[in-house]
Amino acid sequence: MRAWLLAAALSFVSIAPALAADPLRQGAEAVRDKALADTTAYDYVASLTTEVGERLAGTEAAARARDWGVAKLKSLGFSNVHVEPFTITAWVRGPEKAEVTAPFPQSLAIIGLGGSVPTPPGGVEAEAVIFPTYADLLAAPLGSLTGKIAVVTQPMPRAQDGAGYGALNPNRRAGPSEAARRGAIAYLVRSLATGESRAPHTGALNYKPDVPQIPAAALSVVDAELLDRMAALGRPIRIRLSLESHTVANAPAWSVVGEIPGTEHPDQLVVVGGHMDSWDPGQGAIDDGAGMAIAVAAAHLAGAHPAKRTLRVMLFGAEEMDFTRFAVFAAHQAEIPRTVVMGEADIGSDRAWSVALPAGSLTHPAMQAYAAAVAPIGVIMSPEPARGGGDDIVNMVQAGVPAVAVRQDASRYFDWHHSSEDTLDKIDKAQFSQAVATWATLLYVVANSDIDFRALAPASAAAPASAPR
Amino acid sequence: MRAWLLAAALSFVSIAPALAADPLRQGAEAVRDKALADTTAYDYVASLTTEVGERLAGTEAAARARDWGVAKLKSLGFSNVHVEPFTITAWVRGPEKAEVTAPFPQSLAIIGLGGSVPTPPGGVEAEAVIFPTYADLLAAPLGSLTGKIAVVTQPMPRAQDGAGYGALNPNRRAGPSEAARRGAIAYLVRSLATGESRAPHTGALNYKPDVPQIPAAALSVVDAELLDRMAALGRPIRIRLSLESHTVANAPAWSVVGEIPGTEHPDQLVVVGGHMDSWDPGQGAIDDGAGMAIAVAAAHLAGAHPAKRTLRVMLFGAEEMDFTRFAVFAAHQAEIPRTVVMGEADIGSDRAWSVALPAGSLTHPAMQAYAAAVAPIGVIMSPEPARGGGDDIVNMVQAGVPAVAVRQDASRYFDWHHSSEDTLDKIDKAQFSQAVATWATLLYVVANSDIDFRALAPASAAAPASAPR
Repeated sequence: MRAWLLAAALSFVSIAPALAADPLRQGAEAVRDKALADTTAYDYVASLTTEVGERLAGTEAAARARDWGVAKLKSLGFSNVHVEPFTITAWVRGPEKAEVTAPFPQSLAIIGLGGSVPTPPGGVEAEAVIFPTYADLLAAPLGSLTGKIAVVTQPMPRAQDGAGYGALNPNRRAGPSEAARRGAIAYLVRSLATGESRAPHTGALNYKPDVPQIPAAALSVVDAELLDRMAALGRPIRIRLSLESHTVANAPAWSVVGEIPGTEHPDQLVVVGGHMDSWDPGQGAIDDGAGMAIAVAAAHLAGAHPAKRTLRVMLFGAEEMDFTRFAVFAAHQAEIPRTVVMGEADIGSDRAWSVALPAGSLTHPAMQAYAAAVAPIGVIMSPEPARGGGDDIVNMVQAGVPAVAVRQDASRYFDWHHSSEDTLDKIDKAQFSQAVATWATLLYVVANSDIDFRALAPASAAAPASAPR
Repeated sequence: MRAWLLAAALSFVSIAPALAADPLRQGAEAVRDKALADTTAYDYVASLTTEVGERLAGTEAAARARDWGVAKLKSLGFSNVHVEPFTITAWVRGPEKAEVTAPFPQSLAIIGLGGSVPTPPGGVEAEAVIFPTYADLLAAPLGSLTGKIAVVTQPMPRAQDGAGYGALNPNRRAGPSEAARRGAIAYLVRSLATGESRAPHTGALNYKPDVPQIPAAALSVVDAELLDRMAALGRPIRIRLSLESHTVANAPAWSVVGEIPGTEHPDQLVVVGGHMDSWDPGQGAIDDGAGMAIAVAAAHLAGAHPAKRTLRVMLFGAEEMDFTRFAVFAAHQAEIPRTVVMGEADIGSDRAWSVALPAGSLTHPAMQAYAAAVAPIGVIMSPEPARGGGDDIVNMVQAGVPAVAVRQDASRYFDWHHSSEDTLDKIDKAQFSQAVATWATLLYVVANSDIDFRALAPASAAAPASAPR
């Protein structure tokens, strides 16, 4: 930690002049150092979590977040601040309850998965079948779960790059339909979470069209372990589950957009965003108040003296259930040829350690200047190029927009995300500022250079893929 | 942590029978659970660090480590225990000292890089040029460092997968020659290390043939930061450096090998290793006492009831300066066609979170059984295949031997590796057992199946690459 604070406080006067004399690098270093000392991003999340709080897409809270976001962008001096409306099928949680009724009656801490159908009135009660891994569920024969509640208790490993969440994503998203395919009447999954906590973690499911839709919820980590222990004792386990929820067709949703027009090439767009919607149990501080704040603060800092190209910030309105990507593409596909690059910050508030650039650009002088500017704050360039870039921009990226990805340390992120523990106090200010600095410096360099990522891409560059949310 | 200890204590009786009834998986789970409760690996490192300690290749300590290793393998019941000799140019450290002489006289904590030439008698004293990044050194014009001491103070980010070490490896390995190319008479590099410590971290350098060989050492992290602060004050910095060392041509080195012969296919080799040599300032507990211990204990556990294929353990004799890879290839190239797989444990003692398998094998039933067996202890399968597999085996892998890589958490590893802090106390027993279990289960499954990785590899599988050490 201290290393980058130190770097921020210094200018190196004894260095050889070659790289150091590059004006692009000098500007980048000034932006970096300003960002390290700046509190715009933290203040943004503090204001959001205090004045709005959770903001599930399609709800009244999301409308308040929209108004708050418009006012905030205007107050920071962004131009062309506007709202881009679209509609979604909103999902709204009702009362939820689960308990073991036999052999050892105990309540279970659960939370319904986003998109889950409700249980029948009064809930369901049935024998539970505990699967220690998702592969075990997939290996269960058709019909073997008829009338039962399927439970997958596989733990998720802690990983700095979020690889554990990627690997276990099917457990939550596809598990309900795979259980239903085998006859189950309900599905419980151990939260896709690290750490030991009683707070369950929600997240979207994706029903498959060819099987019945069954109610599905996430168990807290410690409750999943409780069921593991009960299962080991060998007596039949019965669980009662009640989930209420409803959906709202054609619910209004919005993304909020603001710009800092470019001085030389205002038509060329450097786009960065985070998502405005959050899950409902927490405050949406780290997911994705932090990412939004990084995007806003980074563009604000990078554009403090207007850049050559236009800096655009997008506060995506409905990420958690995967709606915005289509709305963004519908609204902006005509701009694809003049969109220089897009990026999305959506992995919390901790430090950046690696940056993935568009394929072929690592050796470009502008990117070398960027790499040199952020090396002293402990950031390396990834040898692998950026892939999809983020859930809300992936359709644009798949259509040809170059993507950048700032990899922040996700080691702690899945202790809290999608749970009641996603709150302001989880933000480490020093790490947060370093992440903002890493983004701000990148935006500054791209927006003040003539780099054309498309021209640098090797012909063999693989098609980008979407990352799990 | 608790999650996998819990899994170890349980057998799941409520699960559906399909996958669970697979005898390969059942055997794998038994090995896993035995490994989680086993202390062979920890006892191995405790004995090694107590009875041998540091064991720089080519030294008398390395000979004692060899004898210790032979006795240990025999006592654990390995067959065909033998020594494979080869020769190296050994490098031996002498007294070392560095200090700032102006403008603020202070001593500097440094350690010579492995392979460094000594300074002239009495040392050198010269003006220092501080480069905040390695790119700045590379950007310095030829001749600009004539008569000076070049210093690179770039910090290394903490990364679970060791990516920071990979990215900064040229700072240490190539930096001395790049400084010499520009006229420098000596070179100092901030330790390739995480954390704040006064203990400098050594490691090998690689001189380039076309420039003079200059003495080179690593600064401790805090001493590098001290120089950053001095540089920021803008007055010329002078450093005095004295390094003594000598080399021994044709010094003896060894790898120690033991086997558990296969019951059905004794000619088919499943090979796992760690390296026996260590750097000199510490005890070689985590680098690579831990890796050796993982290999020995994992094979011991996997072969407790002899497997179908032969399990071979190799304790590589001279990894740190990259000698063993050639010796291993020279001694074993004839066995390449019948070597099923090779792996090397050389990333410390912390938990495994991901396993990279040979390309194309992820969906094979044996690997599915393996994945299911280790999922409950928090291990996922990497979507990316294994690459070079490790420094000592990379020549074999490049010649066609399939590689596996168990990715252990390297977040803490670079706080201590190659320094005086590489000591027994850094081993977390619970994490260490989980890493052993992950390896042991893999060895068990491969050695008791008929899986042929070569037959599964897609034609397009990229040539494996070597990882930095």
